Amino acid sequence: MAKIDHIGIAVKSIASARSLYEALGMRVLNMETVEHEQVRTAMIPVDESRIELLEPTAEDSPVGRFLAKRGEGLHHIALHVDDISTTLESLKSKGIRLVSEDIQIGAGGHLYFFIHPSSAGGVLVEICQDSISDV
Amino acid sequence: MAKIDHIGIAVKSIASARSLYEALGMRVLNMETVEHEQVRTAMIPVDESRIELLEPTAEDSPVGRFLAKRGEGLHHIALHVDDISTTLESLKSKGIRLVSEDIQIGAGGHLYFFIHPSSAGGVLVEICQDSISDV
Repeated sequence: MAKIDHIGIAVKSIASARSLYEALGMRVLNMETVEHEQVRTAMIPVDESRIELLEPTAEDSPVGRFLAKRGEGLHHIALHVDDISTTLESLKSKGIRLVSEDIQIGAGGHLYFFIHPSSAGGVLVEICQDSISDV
Repeated sequence: MAKIDHIGIAVKSIASARSLYEALGMRVLNMETVEHEQVRTAMIPVDESRIELLEPTAEDSPVGRFLAKRGEGLHHIALHVDDISTTLESLKSKGIRLVSEDIQIGAGGHLYFFIHPSSAGGVLVEICQDSISDV
């Protein structure tokens, strides 16, 4: 069964945005910079899911362009599945449009791909799975 | 501890938007119309959270105006807390801006209030608690 892995929020400044979540008693963990995405991220655990704050390190980056066009706000949701390959094939066979048809390898070795917002009610949806070594 | 109660997604048509989630093996439950918000909703359980599709029943409604301004996409996130009154007072004391300082009663008797996006990195954040009778 799928689970909500995280909710990505595009912000101008993690330093500013984190204060609400701290006021709610949450902790900001795992600050890291993902160089090839030109983004700084902060993870806020919420029960078994996470809120991920995304601050661009360059204006001409995916999150930087999102901020310029739409301003701060919800950026994507990530759904965790048990078998990402089967999910990918199933979606392709049903004509769901994907951002890329390849499974990518992200930080910590987790696997992911993105569904195009045009097939998801305007929402950028990430499908992810833990790294093979974690299973 | 807080949990992600649901993620609200503004769509033009629930009938169209539901197909992705069904392709992912999820079930669409609890279609209902909330008259005073002029919105039709569909709940999609995702583990212990839910995705809530929001389709306006009138153009001049909160979700209708959101669609006109921003198009389809992520609309709000709802965080479930155990004690909504204490959370409300704590946020007010820390200067967090709220949409309204009153706790509202929603469908099924659940309690909720909204944090203003200006205090939440551009995100409309709902804080909610089950109805008193469920506790």
